[in-house]
Amino acid sequence: MIIDCHGHYTTAPKALEAWRNQQIAGIKDPSVMPKVAELKISDDALRESIETNQLKFMKERGADLTVFSPRASFMAHHIGDFAISSTWASICNELCYRVSKLFPGNFIGAAMLPQSPGVNPKTCIPELEKCVKEYGFVGVNLNPDPSGGWWTSPPLTDKHWYPIYEKMVEYDIPAMIHVSTSCNPCFHTTGAHYINADTTAVMQLIQGDLFKDFPTLRFVIPHGGGAAPYHWGRYRGLAQELKKPVLREHLLKNVFFDTCVYHQPGIDLLTKVIPVENVLFASEMIGAVRGIDPETGHNYDDTKRYIEAANLTPDERGQIYEGNARRVYPRLDKALKTQG
Amino acid sequence: MIIDCHGHYTTAPKALEAWRNQQIAGIKDPSVMPKVAELKISDDALRESIETNQLKFMKERGADLTVFSPRASFMAHHIGDFAISSTWASICNELCYRVSKLFPGNFIGAAMLPQSPGVNPKTCIPELEKCVKEYGFVGVNLNPDPSGGWWTSPPLTDKHWYPIYEKMVEYDIPAMIHVSTSCNPCFHTTGAHYINADTTAVMQLIQGDLFKDFPTLRFVIPHGGGAAPYHWGRYRGLAQELKKPVLREHLLKNVFFDTCVYHQPGIDLLTKVIPVENVLFASEMIGAVRGIDPETGHNYDDTKRYIEAANLTPDERGQIYEGNARRVYPRLDKALKTQG
Repeated sequence: MIIDCHGHYTTAPKALEAWRNQQIAGIKDPSVMPKVAELKISDDALRESIETNQLKFMKERGADLTVFSPRASFMAHHIGDFAISSTWASICNELCYRVSKLFPGNFIGAAMLPQSPGVNPKTCIPELEKCVKEYGFVGVNLNPDPSGGWWTSPPLTDKHWYPIYEKMVEYDIPAMIHVSTSCNPCFHTTGAHYINADTTAVMQLIQGDLFKDFPTLRFVIPHGGGAAPYHWGRYRGLAQELKKPVLREHLLKNVFFDTCVYHQPGIDLLTKVIPVENVLFASEMIGAVRGIDPETGHNYDDTKRYIEAANLTPDERGQIYEGNARRVYPRLDKALKTQG
Repeated sequence: MIIDCHGHYTTAPKALEAWRNQQIAGIKDPSVMPKVAELKISDDALRESIETNQLKFMKERGADLTVFSPRASFMAHHIGDFAISSTWASICNELCYRVSKLFPGNFIGAAMLPQSPGVNPKTCIPELEKCVKEYGFVGVNLNPDPSGGWWTSPPLTDKHWYPIYEKMVEYDIPAMIHVSTSCNPCFHTTGAHYINADTTAVMQLIQGDLFKDFPTLRFVIPHGGGAAPYHWGRYRGLAQELKKPVLREHLLKNVFFDTCVYHQPGIDLLTKVIPVENVLFASEMIGAVRGIDPETGHNYDDTKRYIEAANLTPDERGQIYEGNARRVYPRLDKALKTQG
């Protein structure tokens, strides 16, 4: 079985974006603020948006199940206040839930949180509870920078974030550390902000001792861990200078990297440098890079091809495709066992 | 001959730091502001600081010549105003110049600029002119984020920076894109801010068309290009979506990567993914990562060992060690020919 731990609903029916634009207009002019009930998307529209996109590619490429969350770049936690984020997150999560019910063998949800800059993260807990308890979601996306590229929140090791971590531990769900759109003109969203956030998160976790407080807390760092595996010597050396344990002890009991690295040499490095038990298959399809690589003739984000070509044993490949995801997402494992 | 294109004067005599602290104190209390003449560092003190540190390691490891610039993390362009930065840059550059005169075969200067957040970069030109014309410097370090981690300046492709580029083109000198200390608690200076800045710069240059305006402008992206080579497929794919030419045309005529990547798999990836003519030998010794790697028994930043072990022909190694640096830094080439 092949589990893709990183997929977003980037292909939702256009009505969703139209509603969001109306909501944004409503921030300035409350008279145009849309009601939630005004957003109408039929099951058929959901089915079509999935069958002609993600599910089509999953079948073509050979992935079985995607951990599916709302479109990352559309989370845009910087827009409006907590109430705006709350309504928006609720709508987006519900759509992912509906997709998971329409395609129970192929999609299972991960929650977007109603984060808002400067707002206590504990305000996100009701939405998280609903997603886990009512929707059967198995993970959560946590944005370390809800300001959208201005980095005004404290590091992930700060007690600021502990209410979320306490809930994650209680529910035994991991968080993927995933930023949203950049409003800082210095940072291209998918080319700089995403990758920088991954690198930043890894270094914050090296600097701190978060996992002493939360020994069972688990983070997935997307996009192959940002720059971290490529600079693994630097990070091992910096941990050493900071008098931390070796990274295998200090970091890798709790931190995992996905395989959203869009060329063979990158996947080769990732699977060589990072222990196999810390690597989770993912493609972020359909996402940041949608084209066909002229050097291979295949889609850049068809990451399964790179895993197949990497120097791995069948058992190691099985861990990356399935075993690690079942361990890191225990609720996913349980759901699969229940489904049979 | 082995040229290290990335060394900072991280081991300057303590008097320098003491003077700087006094200058910083003087920002709040002008009565304690030190005079430049109060900083006294003898040639013997300079000699000792180099002979027992950088030069010792260069001899042990087999590097001949280092392109030497002021300590990057101490540039701290966010402190004070332009006048503060101007005095500080002038002092730091002069020390590197004196080192280059004391060890003419081993060190040649690259300038720190007196940047200051919100100040027009053209104010940096007199210092740059002095460094090139009077000190014989062969390159310059350009900080894309003088705010120190808040990223308040426009992208490198913005006309804001053009006065510097015009001077670089006139003098035919490259800039290393190098940030300084991070004051943003999210970003560890050497573990996140440096690497993020490298990645950010590459993506800004992909997004823009700067080299249409400056076909001979050259940038060195330090620390192995941040995350860019590891994610080269992502960057090729993003360039494709942005309807840019292939990166070899769009980027690699003007952008070069150094070899400050502190483990073998990283250097293997760099030299596999990036054309050999775009890779310049560097160690950033003595810099961010000073320890010994327990996995190899050698210093993390002894990058020559990785180049020696990489899958390269002697000719390719020669390009990385010498030929590319002479081409990217023509004034270095000229100085070497003059020296004989």
